[in-house]
Amino acid sequence: MSNAESSLLVVGSVAFDSVETHTDKRVEVLGGAASFVSVAAGFLSPSPVRLIGVVGDDFPAAHTAFLEQQRVDLAGLERVTGRTFRWSGVYSPDFSTRTTLDTQLNVFQDFRPKLPAAWKSSDYVFLANIDPVLQLSVLEQAARPKFVACDTMNFWISGKRPELLRLLERVDMLLLNDEEARQLSGQSNLPAAARAIRAMGPRAVVIKRGDAGALLFHEDGVFSAPAFPIENVIDPTGAGDSFAGGFMGWLARIGNTSPQSIRTAMILGSVLASFSVEDFSLDRFRRLDISEIRERFAAFVDLVHFEKIKI
Amino acid sequence: MSNAESSLLVVGSVAFDSVETHTDKRVEVLGGAASFVSVAAGFLSPSPVRLIGVVGDDFPAAHTAFLEQQRVDLAGLERVTGRTFRWSGVYSPDFSTRTTLDTQLNVFQDFRPKLPAAWKSSDYVFLANIDPVLQLSVLEQAARPKFVACDTMNFWISGKRPELLRLLERVDMLLLNDEEARQLSGQSNLPAAARAIRAMGPRAVVIKRGDAGALLFHEDGVFSAPAFPIENVIDPTGAGDSFAGGFMGWLARIGNTSPQSIRTAMILGSVLASFSVEDFSLDRFRRLDISEIRERFAAFVDLVHFEKIKI
Repeated sequence: MSNAESSLLVVGSVAFDSVETHTDKRVEVLGGAASFVSVAAGFLSPSPVRLIGVVGDDFPAAHTAFLEQQRVDLAGLERVTGRTFRWSGVYSPDFSTRTTLDTQLNVFQDFRPKLPAAWKSSDYVFLANIDPVLQLSVLEQAARPKFVACDTMNFWISGKRPELLRLLERVDMLLLNDEEARQLSGQSNLPAAARAIRAMGPRAVVIKRGDAGALLFHEDGVFSAPAFPIENVIDPTGAGDSFAGGFMGWLARIGNTSPQSIRTAMILGSVLASFSVEDFSLDRFRRLDISEIRERFAAFVDLVHFEKIKI
Repeated sequence: MSNAESSLLVVGSVAFDSVETHTDKRVEVLGGAASFVSVAAGFLSPSPVRLIGVVGDDFPAAHTAFLEQQRVDLAGLERVTGRTFRWSGVYSPDFSTRTTLDTQLNVFQDFRPKLPAAWKSSDYVFLANIDPVLQLSVLEQAARPKFVACDTMNFWISGKRPELLRLLERVDMLLLNDEEARQLSGQSNLPAAARAIRAMGPRAVVIKRGDAGALLFHEDGVFSAPAFPIENVIDPTGAGDSFAGGFMGWLARIGNTSPQSIRTAMILGSVLASFSVEDFSLDRFRRLDISEIRERFAAFVDLVHFEKIKI
């Protein structure tokens, strides 16, 4: 059933995050969408996750060592002169809203993804949230991936809509949050938004709703993946990217994209996201092992289990 | 497995609702929490649902005929001189917020629930959202019900907290929405809020989250019931009460409150809520039959189904 040869390529940001919550804060810790996606995927992917990104000369060896230890292949991580991408934000006490305090693109400003020759034939490709022009350039370099998924954000939906629409014609799945789905589609109702987005190209749409879980809309219908109720949320940063990582890591592991595999991937995405919020940065992943992932998967099975009674 | 003798008592408001959405409106149509709860429960309850409430002399025979046709026993519905309770509100275009325009208690102002002698021994009791003093007075009249659940709202949480806390010591389950759970507990995190509320008395707490579904916290752990993704939402008024009705109707039908029965009841609550939003007032229930309920229950089974794979 599984295919040990499947490879997963991830493109996106590697960053220093400064995060403040109502109880604590962290300054310039490891962050960036591609970091979360790759490390989360690394727990499931059959082979090291291929990361395409850029960092400055201030990116410490400890971070590269950590990423490699988490089964992330850094052959596609460019190191250039200058400062690494920085983001800082603050959460409201109930984590319902997040305010960006500062974004410094730094070396990310001139990032042009370049796929190492050996990576052009990657089977699974995840385009994390970056300029859709760059996302497209990755697809132009890739040779017939089995499955391409991408993320995006409000900034590109309003600022680079034509480019984003060209990208959407070429991806199998779009993952985005509920507000982005509404903005992109012009529909406030989520099933209607998903229908409109599927008409733009992707045969599947995943709408991420934070602690309300995620909805999958595809040719097989609709699937609801709950979020795991976590009592002690420390930092939600990267939860959506960890979801994408668990999702893509499982597809690479199982080696197919059948409707049932996609559903399981949704749950494994939710599993990885549920761990991600339990600490700042990628710190929960530093002490996570596969037995905990198995346990939480079983907890998800129980979370939604009910008897199929006769009414 | 089922117990044809179980009886269900519902106490709460019967009202005229005036509702405006972005596309349409209705003036003085049948509403009120007890109406939604009773009619939704009537699809599942083994015996007619016992409704305790009050209406004025303006309440038309067509409404009483409809309720009776829906298996609601009106022997406990008082008819007094005066005007029936009226509520009016308007929804934002995306249904995310609702503004109350007017509330006229009218005959509800002096409502004192009185249980007919034959109803004092009801097995299942649902106390819809009314003054906790009145909810308590129902329990004082009832003789050892098997299971008591109640709802409440922000108005009582802030205005009659001591009375509400006395009530909570005497109920098995509290159903409330997420904002009410946060307000009552002082906890923004929902699992933490549920833990705090369970410490107030109810051994089970159901947190209703609208189109994000409902969470059950009880001695058996946590259960997540999704909301059914409905593309054409017409009017969300009464969805939470329809959930409570489906929930209680199933418990009365199955005749026990085992953890598995409670989970199934959550899904049947979600099933009835999903129909409720498909039309104004209780109109979707006028043309609903058990075969549609069976079909949607099967759709819920599919909505959350995933394979229990080995990781």
